[in-house]
Amino acid sequence: MGTGKVGADHPYLHAPHGGMPLRDDPQPRRHSPPALHPAVVPAYPPPESDADESWVWSQIKAEARRDADAEPALASFLYATVLSHSSLDRSLAFHLANKLCSSTLLSTLLYDLFVASLAAHPTLRAAVVADLLAARSRDPACAGFSHCLLNYKGFLAIQAQRVAHVLWAQDRRALALALQSRVAEVFAVDIHPAAAIGKGVLLDHATGVVIGETAVIGDNVSILHHVTLGGTGKAVGDRHPKIGDGVLIGAGATILGNVRIGAGAKIGAGSLVLIDVPPRTTAVGNPARLLGGKKGDDMPGESMDHTSFIQQWSDYSI
Amino acid sequence: MGTGKVGADHPYLHAPHGGMPLRDDPQPRRHSPPALHPAVVPAYPPPESDADESWVWSQIKAEARRDADAEPALASFLYATVLSHSSLDRSLAFHLANKLCSSTLLSTLLYDLFVASLAAHPTLRAAVVADLLAARSRDPACAGFSHCLLNYKGFLAIQAQRVAHVLWAQDRRALALALQSRVAEVFAVDIHPAAAIGKGVLLDHATGVVIGETAVIGDNVSILHHVTLGGTGKAVGDRHPKIGDGVLIGAGATILGNVRIGAGAKIGAGSLVLIDVPPRTTAVGNPARLLGGKKGDDMPGESMDHTSFIQQWSDYSI
Amino acid sequence: MGTGKVGADHPYLHAPHGGMPLRDDPQPRRHSPPALHPAVVPAYPPPESDADESWVWSQIKAEARRDADAEPALASFLYATVLSHSSLDRSLAFHLANKLCSSTLLSTLLYDLFVASLAAHPTLRAAVVADLLAARSRDPACAGFSHCLLNYKGFLAIQAQRVAHVLWAQDRRALALALQSRVAEVFAVDIHPAAAIGKGVLLDHATGVVIGETAVIGDNVSILHHVTLGGTGKAVGDRHPKIGDGVLIGAGATILGNVRIGAGAKIGAGSLVLIDVPPRTTAVGNPARLLGGKKGDDMPGESMDHTSFIQQWSDYSI
Amino acid sequence: MGTGKVGADHPYLHAPHGGMPLRDDPQPRRHSPPALHPAVVPAYPPPESDADESWVWSQIKAEARRDADAEPALASFLYATVLSHSSLDRSLAFHLANKLCSSTLLSTLLYDLFVASLAAHPTLRAAVVADLLAARSRDPACAGFSHCLLNYKGFLAIQAQRVAHVLWAQDRRALALALQSRVAEVFAVDIHPAAAIGKGVLLDHATGVVIGETAVIGDNVSILHHVTLGGTGKAVGDRHPKIGDGVLIGAGATILGNVRIGAGAKIGAGSLVLIDVPPRTTAVGNPARLLGGKKGDDMPGESMDHTSFIQQWSDYSI
Amino acid sequence: MGTGKVGADHPYLHAPHGGMPLRDDPQPRRHSPPALHPAVVPAYPPPESDADESWVWSQIKAEARRDADAEPALASFLYATVLSHSSLDRSLAFHLANKLCSSTLLSTLLYDLFVASLAAHPTLRAAVVADLLAARSRDPACAGFSHCLLNYKGFLAIQAQRVAHVLWAQDRRALALALQSRVAEVFAVDIHPAAAIGKGVLLDHATGVVIGETAVIGDNVSILHHVTLGGTGKAVGDRHPKIGDGVLIGAGATILGNVRIGAGAKIGAGSLVLIDVPPRTTAVGNPARLLGGKKGDDMPGESMDHTSFIQQWSDYSI
Amino acid sequence: MGTGKVGADHPYLHAPHGGMPLRDDPQPRRHSPPALHPAVVPAYPPPESDADESWVWSQIKAEARRDADAEPALASFLYATVLSHSSLDRSLAFHLANKLCSSTLLSTLLYDLFVASLAAHPTLRAAVVADLLAARSRDPACAGFSHCLLNYKGFLAIQAQRVAHVLWAQDRRALALALQSRVAEVFAVDIHPAAAIGKGVLLDHATGVVIGETAVIGDNVSILHHVTLGGTGKAVGDRHPKIGDGVLIGAGATILGNVRIGAGAKIGAGSLVLIDVPPRTTAVGNPARLLGGKKGDDMPGESMDHTSFIQQWSDYSI
Repeated sequence: MGTGKVGADHPYLHAPHGGMPLRDDPQPRRHSPPALHPAVVPAYPPPESDADESWVWSQIKAEARRDADAEPALASFLYATVLSHSSLDRSLAFHLANKLCSSTLLSTLLYDLFVASLAAHPTLRAAVVADLLAARSRDPACAGFSHCLLNYKGFLAIQAQRVAHVLWAQDRRALALALQSRVAEVFAVDIHPAAAIGKGVLLDHATGVVIGETAVIGDNVSILHHVTLGGTGKAVGDRHPKIGDGVLIGAGATILGNVRIGAGAKIGAGSLVLIDVPPRTTAVGNPARLLGGKKGDDMPGESMDHTSFIQQWSDYSI
Repeated sequence: MGTGKVGADHPYLHAPHGGMPLRDDPQPRRHSPPALHPAVVPAYPPPESDADESWVWSQIKAEARRDADAEPALASFLYATVLSHSSLDRSLAFHLANKLCSSTLLSTLLYDLFVASLAAHPTLRAAVVADLLAARSRDPACAGFSHCLLNYKGFLAIQAQRVAHVLWAQDRRALALALQSRVAEVFAVDIHPAAAIGKGVLLDHATGVVIGETAVIGDNVSILHHVTLGGTGKAVGDRHPKIGDGVLIGAGATILGNVRIGAGAKIGAGSLVLIDVPPRTTAVGNPARLLGGKKGDDMPGESMDHTSFIQQWSDYSI
Repeated sequence: MGTGKVGADHPYLHAPHGGMPLRDDPQPRRHSPPALHPAVVPAYPPPESDADESWVWSQIKAEARRDADAEPALASFLYATVLSHSSLDRSLAFHLANKLCSSTLLSTLLYDLFVASLAAHPTLRAAVVADLLAARSRDPACAGFSHCLLNYKGFLAIQAQRVAHVLWAQDRRALALALQSRVAEVFAVDIHPAAAIGKGVLLDHATGVVIGETAVIGDNVSILHHVTLGGTGKAVGDRHPKIGDGVLIGAGATILGNVRIGAGAKIGAGSLVLIDVPPRTTAVGNPARLLGGKKGDDMPGESMDHTSFIQQWSDYSI
Repeated sequence: MGTGKVGADHPYLHAPHGGMPLRDDPQPRRHSPPALHPAVVPAYPPPESDADESWVWSQIKAEARRDADAEPALASFLYATVLSHSSLDRSLAFHLANKLCSSTLLSTLLYDLFVASLAAHPTLRAAVVADLLAARSRDPACAGFSHCLLNYKGFLAIQAQRVAHVLWAQDRRALALALQSRVAEVFAVDIHPAAAIGKGVLLDHATGVVIGETAVIGDNVSILHHVTLGGTGKAVGDRHPKIGDGVLIGAGATILGNVRIGAGAKIGAGSLVLIDVPPRTTAVGNPARLLGGKKGDDMPGESMDHTSFIQQWSDYSI
Repeated sequence: MGTGKVGADHPYLHAPHGGMPLRDDPQPRRHSPPALHPAVVPAYPPPESDADESWVWSQIKAEARRDADAEPALASFLYATVLSHSSLDRSLAFHLANKLCSSTLLSTLLYDLFVASLAAHPTLRAAVVADLLAARSRDPACAGFSHCLLNYKGFLAIQAQRVAHVLWAQDRRALALALQSRVAEVFAVDIHPAAAIGKGVLLDHATGVVIGETAVIGDNVSILHHVTLGGTGKAVGDRHPKIGDGVLIGAGATILGNVRIGAGAKIGAGSLVLIDVPPRTTAVGNPARLLGGKKGDDMPGESMDHTSFIQQWSDYSI
Repeated sequence: MGTGKVGADHPYLHAPHGGMPLRDDPQPRRHSPPALHPAVVPAYPPPESDADESWVWSQIKAEARRDADAEPALASFLYATVLSHSSLDRSLAFHLANKLCSSTLLSTLLYDLFVASLAAHPTLRAAVVADLLAARSRDPACAGFSHCLLNYKGFLAIQAQRVAHVLWAQDRRALALALQSRVAEVFAVDIHPAAAIGKGVLLDHATGVVIGETAVIGDNVSILHHVTLGGTGKAVGDRHPKIGDGVLIGAGATILGNVRIGAGAKIGAGSLVLIDVPPRTTAVGNPARLLGGKKGDDMPGESMDHTSFIQQWSDYSI
């Protein structure tokens, strides 16, 4: 977790650059992000390369074209949402605008907002791609990139939150909160616009996820449904959990307070966590107890560590 | 659980024909389904008889006509959804189509799909009737069949999933997944199209229910809100729970992995279940411990057993 | 809890007049409601004074005007929902009608219903104001009254339920249940119309809250998301929890059966509560154990007691 | 034409009180309006009596109930538009609001506006009744009052214009013009809000009718489709036709300039009229020539005169 | 005009079987309808052959597929309206339902109605095909069958009227009038449901067309915009024009009264016709004068006569 | 009329550069367009100067802000359509998209199309400004630029047609025809995409206007409602009228065939014109006869001529 908010020196959070920066960072990153393990996603180009977005977009269009040909009843939907658009970010902006609009918040207004935000912030677009790769590689039920883009409400909720996060940083708070509210109603996912969320994040199923204002989530985190990252005690200020890179949080887990969940930790389903969890440690139960480091993790290299999490990740996936 | 998927020889799952078959079964069933106990639903005709559908439909129309007369503000809604239709399946198709449509997935398309699916698959229509009888007999807050048909999002989510299940079996997967997505957004109920669901199933309150791809649910099962039937460990393949006939799963329970919950078992609210649960056994806690067989269940006949579950069912109902 | 349903003589529930009466009470209340502690809401006028509604409404309009000026993209929304209306109850009626309408339940019908109900029942309007004050004073993420009015689905769900409660008491049950159904779909909050809910209640985040038919909730209660107040055992009759004044219920807590949660009690996040909880006592765990009275609460005056809860409330807030 | 705008002393326009007054007139009218001839509408109570509105409303409800019983496919529509409402003006306000709303002009806003305007201005309500009686008695294709209320776009356009006229008189011009615009789009009827329109007016078929800013139309006038009451010559000021009581204007007729069409005159279909037309005179042709007074009109009593117009009216009706 | 209404013995109207019969005619027609002249539509199969519907439908799908490939922005629309449907009548029913629906008349209801009507009445489907062939062969601006099916409001208005005509004949008058009303609003075309309309009819541009209750229109008639077929004189009864086969009526023409326009006659643009017009005669002017038979029409065979009209038809087309 | 289509050498059509070019013209125009006469629009900056668009846009915003302040009921509409937009073309694109969208042609798609077209074609934006100035200066009922932008369906129909014209020129004909169809339905104005329309054109009232495929309309033309520019005789090819600069066409006039209406001519209301009309000549009647040149037009300078037309224009305005 490299954001200043969390503290790069904290021993639990040593992944170099997690979190979603409030502004695009022109400086080169010192540590390249851990690549997805080749055994898991062997056919993919290196994540975050320049070619990623166009490659993923070409895959999405190919999938949509295949589905439109095979299923006439869905062809209109697929052309409207994917095949009539010139780029991934326009397709996403269109789809989000139609999902989140209401009788008092028109789709054209939201479409404009999403198109402009994605165009102005390359990091938002890179996060879209990373999240799509994450869902595709980690969720065995994910039938394709287009399946995630069109149907995963966790994916859509995060993309809308990232736009809301940019608005929040620009002090356009009323609009950011209105977006949060629509996402909470439409997707039943309630993430405060101020929360910082890294790349390659998967919200699987997503119903009922609640993430508080000062929460920070690293890169390559996977969060199941009904998970709460809540506050405790302080009326104002930094009061929500900090989640390190590569963490997996099982369904229904509740993490409260400004605690640190170290990189590569795993939180069991249904756990109640009120304390820090060291890196590569598993916490289970209500209240949670720590199970210590995992076997074979004594000297985990960054990338290895991540892939081991990913392999174990499916323990609680469905 | 009599479906081949679960294994009829498994000692936990000996109810003869649970689960929703992927295709209509022309063969006569060897075991007749256990009737609802007369003490619970004394005024009802025998369930699953040929006359059921028309009887339930006549009840629904009578209720709707009574409510339309008493409440002018609701009359338009009741005529549109119930009283203008010639049959239960057309009423349901209309109602589901209007609930699940979006600006990119038109109501006429969905209506066509639901009408055609219900017409082609008598088992879908029989399951609609059985689910209505289940809600009416088990839920003390159920004010009538029309109340369930129109207002229970769990009921509506299951009917839509059964149509998606048929599409999945016909290899129309993109459309099946699109339906799943709309159900997850509109009802906050996320059931994979491949999951097999029996008849007489009640999803009470239903918000937050998540059921994975290879899950199987028997007949006459009752599931409260926030219940997860999730996966664990295997990246692909058979990885979700198998729920026997007559099982009751309390609010917020999480069952993970390819475990077997035996017929007539009861899972306590908030439990985390990672192991098999024998028939007629109660599991409670996080992680769950087994409480053994229930008193008076030593020699449960099929029908008795079911009614005893139903009587106990309300332990966790609200 | 002063409603007859709960019993004013019950030792756990001695707050004088919680709950939402089924009909407007023309008699003067014997005990004035406990004021919010000045240390928490120092700038507010005395709650429930006659001037409250107009003061809060003037604040909401000022906030909306400020936001409309600062954010052109939101101005249309703010004028439609707030600035074009002559009173708080018309603004709320408009907003709720547009949120809850569907293709078969038109917004004009709902608007008519909400306007008429709020006009006829001053207690409904007073409760709106009290709930807005509660959110503003207790939730550190609440950016203003207008933020709560427009964006908090818990707030909106409660206001709709209170109208449904009035309809239920008038024996307009079909309409009341249709409202419940729409609230459950749109906000993922499922509260039976018969449940009695006091004033100054905060449903924070709100997703997944389920409250049963015979539940009673006192004044100044705070309930986090995923909380269930469910039934157990009895097929019909009084079967749901009674929540005293000033109680705090943490995220994901499940309270089942006709148990009494005493005034000022606190239920920990993720707890499963099947027994009575005495006043000013904390219950945690699955199943819950009692932690006894809190320090400094030996002689709690009503108002002190409330403020102590409110100060501690944020233990589980996010 | 008794309005001051037209000049009661003008020989062509001696009907005592045509036109729609800008404000409710508390003074008693000196001349009672000419009653509809009993031979034409024998079963009707005297027009403009106090009982008219309730009698017409009871007829409409009886017709709607009969149609709803006979035609289930229309029952929802009839309950929504007629049978769920407590009065004629609420039914009309609802129907107009749903017709004229758009994605940027919400139905609830328009409903509010129409309800408030009809409640505040008894003359608007009286004109609604008079127009319904006019359509019922003069149009042989009119199947009932409800047919006119629900389906006649000329009727609906006039009622909306009368509300816009009130707004115009209150100097709420932007809203009045927005209403005009919606009426012009939805009904293809373009009437300036400032135009004064009497009671008992029938716009039959109505498509393409255009009526300019300073036009005045008397009572009991019948106007077919494609009729223009346009201006000529003066850039500003009084520049449009004045139509006397009981005038009939055939399909496609064009009347331009501040000319006076005398009471009881008849303008042939397709005529172009640029000059005054004396009372009880027929004008036909392009440009129009006058055919002189009609036989038997030497001593026309007011009511006789009207009924003779009405009998002849159908010359160009369809 | 062979319908009994008009009188087959009338010398002006000797085309054998014009008009739309109220019920499907099981008897073989004595005279086959005049074929479209090969010089005009050389590539078309013989009209009204059994293969027509499938041939036209295959053309429409080919055009839509070509356009969807060439124009991604329109692909979603084309798949929704054409390419996802299994037959021409389902495509038309879907398109009409979405055009004519309103907030109180739902698209699913209309879709059901149109699908059922077209399925039950082969003559309706045959008329759809004949009208498409008419537009394609006569209108030089018609870019294809799909252009007419999707974009010609005259075509769509007639198809809706034919369904309303069937409803009227079944004494379902309230629904028939509701359809008329929606067509009048949406397409600005006002045709009474009782009017009988033949096959191969073209309403070009169509805005402002008004056709009265007892009007009858033969086969292969072409009518431009702003045309009125209105009534005169009789309060009730047969009071509207009868239009023979192959007649052409120019833009803005007004024909009033129960007059007969003979087969093959031509009515000039802007004419006012109050008298019978013999076959193969041209009427022009206000009021109209007759120009006598056309050269070369001394001995017109039926089919020749029709094609000569069709060749001359474009005199007033645009 | 300087477009090649019409022929710059034709004596009737000597205005230098009317019509809407199919593509932006990079070459400097040899003749500057005739300025609006100062006596008519004294306060306006010179038309077509670079500052026009920003000046008009600032006026529109000022008017909208004034109206929003004065009329809360309209404020939401004005913010959505005008005040939330950064430029005139975005406001227009938003407004048109919301007017012309349907359930199968989404507003976001149309918005995208209009934004892109207006951005790519400066001549489209210049024509928007010229048309606004034309309405403001010529129509005495025009209450402001915003009144025209928001409420004039003739203005909106022309702007949509100009975009369709660009699409037609790019051989995107299916989309162009779909736009034409929506405009014909929504505004009852039917203009073929191939028709070439100049700048400063006013369609007043606009209902029922029909303009054919090969019609050409010069600059500063005013056309009233129900006007037809139709074809005659030729099945294909150049078959519609050519309208010179500064022509005024009265309500209901019908002009048929490839005739030339010379610059500054005036066509009387209800006229039927089948022949050429020389410049500065008036044609009236059915069929039309020519009235010769106007007094004082013997030596009309271009700009004088225009203003004389504009002064006379209101002869038939309403």
